[in-house]
Amino acid sequence: MQIITLEQIKLILPSLDLFPEIEKGFKAYSEGKVVVPPIGEMILEKGEVHIKYGFVRGGKYYVIKIASGFYCNPEYGLSSSNGLMLLFSQQTGELECILLDEGHLTNIRTAVAGAIVAKHLAPDPVHRIGIVGAGIQGRLQLHYLKDVVACREVMVWGTSTKELDLYRIDMEREGFRIETTGDASLLQRQCNLIVTATPSKRPLLSDVYLEEGTHITAVGSDTADKQELDPEILQHADLVVADSIVQCMERGEIFKAMEAGKMVKNKVVELGNIISGTSTGRANKEQITVADLTGVAVQDIGIATAVYSAFRGHAG
Amino acid sequence: MQIITLEQIKLILPSLDLFPEIEKGFKAYSEGKVVVPPIGEMILEKGEVHIKYGFVRGGKYYVIKIASGFYCNPEYGLSSSNGLMLLFSQQTGELECILLDEGHLTNIRTAVAGAIVAKHLAPDPVHRIGIVGAGIQGRLQLHYLKDVVACREVMVWGTSTKELDLYRIDMEREGFRIETTGDASLLQRQCNLIVTATPSKRPLLSDVYLEEGTHITAVGSDTADKQELDPEILQHADLVVADSIVQCMERGEIFKAMEAGKMVKNKVVELGNIISGTSTGRANKEQITVADLTGVAVQDIGIATAVYSAFRGHAG
Repeated sequence: MQIITLEQIKLILPSLDLFPEIEKGFKAYSEGKVVVPPIGEMILEKGEVHIKYGFVRGGKYYVIKIASGFYCNPEYGLSSSNGLMLLFSQQTGELECILLDEGHLTNIRTAVAGAIVAKHLAPDPVHRIGIVGAGIQGRLQLHYLKDVVACREVMVWGTSTKELDLYRIDMEREGFRIETTGDASLLQRQCNLIVTATPSKRPLLSDVYLEEGTHITAVGSDTADKQELDPEILQHADLVVADSIVQCMERGEIFKAMEAGKMVKNKVVELGNIISGTSTGRANKEQITVADLTGVAVQDIGIATAVYSAFRGHAG
Repeated sequence: MQIITLEQIKLILPSLDLFPEIEKGFKAYSEGKVVVPPIGEMILEKGEVHIKYGFVRGGKYYVIKIASGFYCNPEYGLSSSNGLMLLFSQQTGELECILLDEGHLTNIRTAVAGAIVAKHLAPDPVHRIGIVGAGIQGRLQLHYLKDVVACREVMVWGTSTKELDLYRIDMEREGFRIETTGDASLLQRQCNLIVTATPSKRPLLSDVYLEEGTHITAVGSDTADKQELDPEILQHADLVVADSIVQCMERGEIFKAMEAGKMVKNKVVELGNIISGTSTGRANKEQITVADLTGVAVQDIGIATAVYSAFRGHAG
């Protein structure tokens, strides 16, 4: 049994081409080749824990991923996200590898999914990227967008000036031009590719400021009580995409919009089907498109398997 | 973060008094002090995986336990049960300890629960113990019964003569007198404390051979498709006890009996309430009692916390 630490994972990651790996995973998922049981969820006083697990039929491993969000952690100098991934043999149930990623691989695969969505749904050209949330995920989303979007003009929204300043410093170092704001409506009016990446429980983006041709990827809401988008955004969108339709019926923006009576299930298209071409993506420059990413175990299977395989390759 | 291996766990276990620890857990569970979300379940071609998790409100840790059963494993010289337990901080979500128990702690806490049940529900005297299933769990059940039942006369049922012979050798070494059989009806007629510990998917014990005053603990069935007891046994029993009523509505013997229309929910009493005295246990020598143990996360919380605490104590 192999234990791989966060430090080792970080050394391996740059050598991996995760984009096709995770894109392939979404495709297989929508084709019904992946078994993904319902998410395990635990709500504690200080945080929340998600257990995502599953396997690709005929594959080598099954993967169980534990990821937590304890949003007061930064007050103690700790990361809000945490967790680990476990790979087991589909033949014997033996534990083959523990990836002590401390939530890092979850953050990465979430950001990669954001980039995959942008590749398929972003308007062309993107004139300005809007990032809602100046935390870890807000950074990673922008980082991975680099490969699929030429635009380097960015507006970032946050609630803390200090956090926004740090974000600007970090991401300008990566070659972006960053403007910070505390006004989400300004961001909405100026950006046509928007990613929301906060743990908010109330809508941050409003239907009122929604511009023609905008694409929004909502990655923050992964429970039944988190929400970043006004349900009317989904109601008025020309296309609403879910990473997993089954999952988005029970959590995330689509769930919230349906709960509010602003959406019907058959309006939703699955990401894997857009990737494979089975469903139609953005049809023109004017369409408003929304993708709701709640995070599917197939992403964890993809990234965990890729890291472990590379580690074994490196180890000879 | 601490990693504790199976070898280390085995060194610690003899020093632990698990019985009161797990008894206390069942009591707390029935009092509503424990959060135990629904079991995560994954059925693969060669085996099955259960994820059990939860926390005691106000406690230090939350525990996630992964346990698998791959019943062809013994053909390759591997144990059929496998898994690990993880302890995380309730305050920060940080992983504090990995118990690489390979399923051993699950086996132990299941056997301890069997002994707890026997303490509260076994007839007095037990004139002969019947063990259905000559595997690991069949051994451990008998081992832990030692402390609560004076009887050393045992009949064990199994399908393989070789397995039965090995069982006899092992358990006679522990001070029992063992008779082996391939006839479950014989076992039923001769034993008044019976434990079933197989992964069977069809009833092994029949209502026809049920003797007055018998207690049966069914530990094998922990899914919606496994079953060891004829539903009519539960129908005719004077008392039916569940480790968790919620869980036994969806899996195990009680689920099977309800599915067959032989049981109603309000006949079922919860183990923790019998331990606390809130519910009445066996009322007389003649009653037929049945306990259905599907395995509750609170047992995992109890045993994982006990092992980790002892380990830290030993480490100074």
